[in-house]
Amino acid sequence: MIELRKDPIVKRWVIISSERSKRPIDFKKVVEEPETFFCPFDYGNEYSTPPEVLAFREPSSKPNSSGWWLRVVPNKFPALSTEHELKKQGYGIYDQMSGYGYHEVIIETPEHNTSLAKMPESQIREIMWAYVKRFQEIRKDRNIKYIQIFKNKGREAGATLSHPHSQLIATPIVPITIRSEIEGAKSYYDFRERCVFCDIISQELSEKVRVVFRTSEFVVIEPYASRFPYETWILPIKHSHDFGSIETKPPLVEDLAKAVSIIAKKFEKKIDDPPFNLVIHTAPFIEGLEHYYHWHIEIIPRLTNIAGFEWGTGFNINHIAPEQACADLSE
Amino acid sequence: MIELRKDPIVKRWVIISSERSKRPIDFKKVVEEPETFFCPFDYGNEYSTPPEVLAFREPSSKPNSSGWWLRVVPNKFPALSTEHELKKQGYGIYDQMSGYGYHEVIIETPEHNTSLAKMPESQIREIMWAYVKRFQEIRKDRNIKYIQIFKNKGREAGATLSHPHSQLIATPIVPITIRSEIEGAKSYYDFRERCVFCDIISQELSEKVRVVFRTSEFVVIEPYASRFPYETWILPIKHSHDFGSIETKPPLVEDLAKAVSIIAKKFEKKIDDPPFNLVIHTAPFIEGLEHYYHWHIEIIPRLTNIAGFEWGTGFNINHIAPEQACADLSE
Repeated sequence: MIELRKDPIVKRWVIISSERSKRPIDFKKVVEEPETFFCPFDYGNEYSTPPEVLAFREPSSKPNSSGWWLRVVPNKFPALSTEHELKKQGYGIYDQMSGYGYHEVIIETPEHNTSLAKMPESQIREIMWAYVKRFQEIRKDRNIKYIQIFKNKGREAGATLSHPHSQLIATPIVPITIRSEIEGAKSYYDFRERCVFCDIISQELSEKVRVVFRTSEFVVIEPYASRFPYETWILPIKHSHDFGSIETKPPLVEDLAKAVSIIAKKFEKKIDDPPFNLVIHTAPFIEGLEHYYHWHIEIIPRLTNIAGFEWGTGFNINHIAPEQACADLSE
Repeated sequence: MIELRKDPIVKRWVIISSERSKRPIDFKKVVEEPETFFCPFDYGNEYSTPPEVLAFREPSSKPNSSGWWLRVVPNKFPALSTEHELKKQGYGIYDQMSGYGYHEVIIETPEHNTSLAKMPESQIREIMWAYVKRFQEIRKDRNIKYIQIFKNKGREAGATLSHPHSQLIATPIVPITIRSEIEGAKSYYDFRERCVFCDIISQELSEKVRVVFRTSEFVVIEPYASRFPYETWILPIKHSHDFGSIETKPPLVEDLAKAVSIIAKKFEKKIDDPPFNLVIHTAPFIEGLEHYYHWHIEIIPRLTNIAGFEWGTGFNINHIAPEQACADLSE
């Protein structure tokens, strides 16, 4: 079966082509050598990271010592930093800006060899709390237009340290991907006066063929125009444009932790624990988006390489239909 | 140095952050096992591919037998195919289309173990001729809106076979990346009445800090807002929106082969022969683009992984400034 499908939000087309999974591959198998390394995220090595900006720890324990079960620290090798004040300037036909922003690491647990799939749901709830607390703190900076919270699991997913961690990067501009989601959602709203994400949720909940599971507050789907095998989205069922808003409703945080825990376990059990990227998409800090933007989480297993066609066109070839992916994860 | 830079065409921001190249990496070294495989692109195995649609071969030799120095065949595992007639339909809030299109493989040489860097310039000229001949042939199909010619070198770049080859995928829609290039180039043209690519070329040629080299007809640059270390663009110096137009000016084909040969050798010698994607960006088959679109080639070495931040935002972090990359390739 070969089919072109269009993402209703950013109008990005995808080729769903099950045939191609049969292709022969003549490249060498990758063999990984055992790991021996000083881990800056382990107990006892707190001195080797910048001082923590948030930690959940035993009341008796001192900052930047052991006794914590979650730590947030500035990235030692930041992509952006508040040391540079925000300066914008032209340069011939080009535009540039100083590298103003925040780059933090959420050390999810003291345990070096664990994962979202293995850790208790209660620990994932702590991670979600850390996400939202830092999100709310950093958004107070008026120079910040967007906060990207994300997790890279595994080398193929771009992680450089294997100790379970997430990251937060706060930028002084609205990133292009978010901008095109907003443009797409706005034109849909202008046309139908409904949120496109809400319409996706209601069609998916009634069709059921791409819904992996739902909790009371969230639905977990394989999107209709999935770019990648087992691409998975977690969406709040009740419309909300702002990830930060879950802070005010603790049951939402609990329920999100539950959804993340379940999907992580399914990835480990059903599709052999792939490397993946988890990214939170939320409204940037500009007015007027509340009716048509809808925050959500996208999880992309890194099972296939991005090649020239995808780079050239932004047009993905996915050899596992989302209906099949949903069946594989649900069975 | 950390700096944000904006691509003047698609308005995509990039973080240039040299700091991050110092990050420690604790993941295992990758060891590749030797390759033993039946190669469908070798001499004598012509029967194992679909019948050739174009071949440059000894006059005495028979089609689909040896005696060729370049072959073009339909992809045995096509992403798109003309077997499906073009059908478009809605599906609830979603849109879909049958998988109509072309997917061909350009087998660049009978030699299994060679590369663009190692083969003679004359062979690269033959490859360019094959590109343009198939491009001109397929564009006659009125259902086709865009033709993507691309090359994946190495497993990390998404290649599944190591024998030197390129691919061509012709699509019934204009891909999103090309559409945003067009939108960006159009808004620039509406504002300045000049082609943004031509303005980039003239600024680069006068500044010289990002020009790797130029031939009589082409300039090879590290773009100002490079997304990746050693991202390299090849642009025709004289404005032209259509890759197919080089057919009418054989000196252009010769000169393009020269530019490709030089940059391939530089990649092999100066940056350790990285895996890369080479993609040709050209105007889709719709009216009115000739003044502001400018065809070009983008080459992306695959030295870094795309991670969650890049997926979430479309915002790349590049730890080698293009000025440095240019110096490294030029020295």
